[in-house]
Amino acid sequence: MSVRVKTQPLTAEAFAPFGDVIEASGSVDKLINQGRCERYHNRAKLDFVDGEAGISIFKSEVFSLPLSIEMMERHPEGSQAFLPLSDKPFLVVVAPDEGGKPGAPLAFITQPGQGVNYHRGVWHGVLTPLHEPGLFAVVDRIGTGPNLEEHWFTEEVILHE
Amino acid sequence: MSVRVKTQPLTAEAFAPFGDVIEASGSVDKLINQGRCERYHNRAKLDFVDGEAGISIFKSEVFSLPLSIEMMERHPEGSQAFLPLSDKPFLVVVAPDEGGKPGAPLAFITQPGQGVNYHRGVWHGVLTPLHEPGLFAVVDRIGTGPNLEEHWFTEEVILHE
Repeated sequence: MSVRVKTQPLTAEAFAPFGDVIEASGSVDKLINQGRCERYHNRAKLDFVDGEAGISIFKSEVFSLPLSIEMMERHPEGSQAFLPLSDKPFLVVVAPDEGGKPGAPLAFITQPGQGVNYHRGVWHGVLTPLHEPGLFAVVDRIGTGPNLEEHWFTEEVILHE
Repeated sequence: MSVRVKTQPLTAEAFAPFGDVIEASGSVDKLINQGRCERYHNRAKLDFVDGEAGISIFKSEVFSLPLSIEMMERHPEGSQAFLPLSDKPFLVVVAPDEGGKPGAPLAFITQPGQGVNYHRGVWHGVLTPLHEPGLFAVVDRIGTGPNLEEHWFTEEVILHE
């Protein structure tokens, strides 16, 4: 048995149950720098238990579609934001929780200028850039103690265009 | 009278008195995702008074060299990190404090994959991308109350290659 999941363009609306799309969209919140810069203010729900926000860099191998994924994970202690240091699309895989396991996965493809913030405890796939350089700034929990749950699928999950 | 400042490549060492260069450099702190991703952990000193970290998007006009700057600013209540959502270089201008005013400015040009974090209270220029799309994720203080000091130069400050 295998499950096939068709990728879709990432939109804030479709992603809302899982987290925030971080992008220059909607109304500008403030014009700064003598009108030369638009500020879209506080666009991600950062949420950390027993820890605080920090900025790290992730440098990942590159993946391509169709892609078979074996595992999804979640972080019970904190939200996790991925901000691409390039204008290249990446793949964002999330699932609702169903009794402590991921339910049916959804797969999104980002557009240039989009980052994502997974809300605390949301099931998601590992980082899957689709193009070089696979480089991201990550805003997540800096703290001690375990903060990772993994679910390994017993059936094949294939993401496709 | 005018002051001319020659730009230099951004390095962590030269920038250290002012903040952090956020990049995939030095030793990898952790291999994650079954060895497919490198984590460079907690590479910026986030520091907020009476507020907390948030992620905003800045979309700025584009500038070019030589560039005359009229003002520098600082944020007494918090650090401020700029993470480019592209691989395009941007200009980073900082100055040491001299009696409550910026001293001699330094100007750096970033390389692809570099972000910066201005430490709390450091004098810096406004956001000056050198190429489209001028789009950045910004991690700075979300809080109430004033958090901006400006210094307007009485002499011309020209940044050049």
